[in-house]
Amino acid sequence: MLLERDLIQSVGFRNVRENGRITGFQLRLRMPSYRGMSASLIDGVAVRVGDLVDVAADVPLWTLQGKTYTLQELWDSEGARWPLEDAAIITVPFEGGLPDGVHEVSIELRLRMSYIPVEHQPSTYNVTKHVTLAPEAQGGPFKYGVSLYSFMTDYGTVLDLETAMAGIADLGATGIEILGEGHIPNYPNPSQEWVDDWFRLLEKYGLEPTNYGSWIDSRLHSSGPNGRDMTVEEGAQQLQRDLRLAKRLGFRFVRPKIGVVSSDLVPHPIWTEVVESSLPLAEELDVVICPEIHAPTPIKHEVVDEYIEFINRTGTKHFGILIDTGIFQDRPIPLRPGELPGRRPAFLDGIGVPPSDFADVAPYVVFVQAKFHDIDENLEDQQIPWEPVLRAMRDAGYTGYLSSEYEGEREPWRSIEQVRRQHSLMRQVADAL
Amino acid sequence: MLLERDLIQSVGFRNVRENGRITGFQLRLRMPSYRGMSASLIDGVAVRVGDLVDVAADVPLWTLQGKTYTLQELWDSEGARWPLEDAAIITVPFEGGLPDGVHEVSIELRLRMSYIPVEHQPSTYNVTKHVTLAPEAQGGPFKYGVSLYSFMTDYGTVLDLETAMAGIADLGATGIEILGEGHIPNYPNPSQEWVDDWFRLLEKYGLEPTNYGSWIDSRLHSSGPNGRDMTVEEGAQQLQRDLRLAKRLGFRFVRPKIGVVSSDLVPHPIWTEVVESSLPLAEELDVVICPEIHAPTPIKHEVVDEYIEFINRTGTKHFGILIDTGIFQDRPIPLRPGELPGRRPAFLDGIGVPPSDFADVAPYVVFVQAKFHDIDENLEDQQIPWEPVLRAMRDAGYTGYLSSEYEGEREPWRSIEQVRRQHSLMRQVADAL
Repeated sequence: MLLERDLIQSVGFRNVRENGRITGFQLRLRMPSYRGMSASLIDGVAVRVGDLVDVAADVPLWTLQGKTYTLQELWDSEGARWPLEDAAIITVPFEGGLPDGVHEVSIELRLRMSYIPVEHQPSTYNVTKHVTLAPEAQGGPFKYGVSLYSFMTDYGTVLDLETAMAGIADLGATGIEILGEGHIPNYPNPSQEWVDDWFRLLEKYGLEPTNYGSWIDSRLHSSGPNGRDMTVEEGAQQLQRDLRLAKRLGFRFVRPKIGVVSSDLVPHPIWTEVVESSLPLAEELDVVICPEIHAPTPIKHEVVDEYIEFINRTGTKHFGILIDTGIFQDRPIPLRPGELPGRRPAFLDGIGVPPSDFADVAPYVVFVQAKFHDIDENLEDQQIPWEPVLRAMRDAGYTGYLSSEYEGEREPWRSIEQVRRQHSLMRQVADAL
Repeated sequence: MLLERDLIQSVGFRNVRENGRITGFQLRLRMPSYRGMSASLIDGVAVRVGDLVDVAADVPLWTLQGKTYTLQELWDSEGARWPLEDAAIITVPFEGGLPDGVHEVSIELRLRMSYIPVEHQPSTYNVTKHVTLAPEAQGGPFKYGVSLYSFMTDYGTVLDLETAMAGIADLGATGIEILGEGHIPNYPNPSQEWVDDWFRLLEKYGLEPTNYGSWIDSRLHSSGPNGRDMTVEEGAQQLQRDLRLAKRLGFRFVRPKIGVVSSDLVPHPIWTEVVESSLPLAEELDVVICPEIHAPTPIKHEVVDEYIEFINRTGTKHFGILIDTGIFQDRPIPLRPGELPGRRPAFLDGIGVPPSDFADVAPYVVFVQAKFHDIDENLEDQQIPWEPVLRAMRDAGYTGYLSSEYEGEREPWRSIEQVRRQHSLMRQVADAL
């Protein structure tokens, strides 16, 4: 398990209930010192939340190593510790709790260091951070999940699997999506020990495997003097390897990312034979193959028509459509430093598919990747219009997963807070429909 | 194991030898995609190092999962992979290798993505980073180590124990220093499983435990209505707990950080009885207790005199002096944002102990913490004058460890590169004495 860099952790900011009543809220703090220490060296923490809460340093309760203390109890404690490797859980009594959304949380934390002259004591840590409350909104009729794709660049540098799962569970989300070639160590041959650990963690955090991302790398051998396209047999082998591995890890959907042959992402022509020859295996494993409709491909497009024709022709229940909500993007992603207007793929400005188009393909849609890029401190998404998008999905009868795919700036730890914002936003929007 | 955020990893930048001759250098690259991929999708990497090296994308060799390939061999490979979780090792042939120091390394890495229209392919990643070569200088007569204190704030957020050890070993350092209450999970009662893993990792990375940092928290119960000072018995209990734990982990030195009673860090008067009553245990365990001389306490100070008197009076071989090189700081640490001149402890401007003072206490010095704050890209330390410091230590016959204590800015990952610079600098300075 790893901790977030900020003293105030995003994960763990949540209302708390006693006997079904919300009696306050909690937040987790990373130890600011370079050592863990005896709990009696803590001199309290004052907490402010916007204009809603302002409590003195002796008010919050402290949960350390599973046991809860008042400040006086910390001072009187023997053997209780705030370890460097564990966040302390701070509970602030606040009848009714905090409303859903992003809050400006400030703390003043005080610790006593025996080795610093008393005139510089206690050591005081003042920090403020915008943090998103684990949502109270239910968000029906949808189910909520997170793709580890959201944590690109964070995963393996500031996040490991268990830390990621704990963060997803903290949102009340129930689904986890992975990329086979991204998140399975020693892919395609994970150790049985890793597989066992995968199931242990799913159980511990109450998560179910949803969609498994795979690739059909049609350019696998396209470089060099012997360059050539992928054959149907090679493509089928690649897909079937992933179908089996997905099943082994408990996934119900596999999204093969198929190599393309045009600017608007027409898939390589091998796709039909590759998928068709894999349908018996998909049926045997009861896994649904679901290529994604991803910008710049809109819903009204020959590629989508072809997928639907394929489903109708084969009558299969093991092939479907995955919608990436990036197709509904109706405002541009800001230019990055050095990026010039017109010099990047046009779809980054948003292809603005009308949400109502969802109804045309709804019977074939089996999974939704909730792609997004930037949600601000007022919980406003800067690119994706969630209200009409979720309304169209609900009206069309979709009740499956909304699986977060954060694709914005890759500053370390930013993805964690952005995913929290998206879940808070989507669940509030869904409840208000 | 975690990877550094930059594509070019600091750890692993080193010359390579064949049959005792330096034939080139290596660097490690993090996969820039969000997935691992088949090695045949790599289209090479061009590498430039300052004015010294400039090679085309087809020149470097690739080591993936323990096997080494030319670019053509990558293209022809079946089953070889660059996994997301492993850095690729790039070997550049360069007769004689690179000179010690900080180098500006640039790469242009090319990867083929089948799912991106060909007009945007290959995906190209251009990055430049200043990286310090694992030093070739021997650095005698000293031994070299690193304290995990150097990685404060990085440890537990972007570094775990194994990643830290791998980085230390990569420098050719042989010693690891820890803080008991910082780096031992579930201190003071680590699981036997963790202890076994500690020894396994020491073996794997060829490291020996050096010094173990502990605390005598004289203000453990000083807060609240029942506030009081620590007793001798409590202090002895704390010290002896750490002596035993240090021994269990293989350490030979224990530095207790003793609570202070004055601005110039005069230790709490319980120290004499606490230490004296613990000497029989230290002797039994063959562990040396060594409080540190740390700014603002200079070498010519009553505290140091008291320690020496204590050694002479008791005749013990299990108590000694630890010198923190921060006492030799002769230029100020720059003010941090918001810090006002004269409003912070004066010693941060440097107390400038003359390095020649080292000779006065040399017979009693058992360990050196090589404290530093900032070493620039020209390998110039901005605060500590290493040439006279190391000269004084060598002339006084010190042949023990120089154990890095980086104490500068805590931007994520900065500590890793700073420690590399310090080892390169100290070893070059020592060789030139």
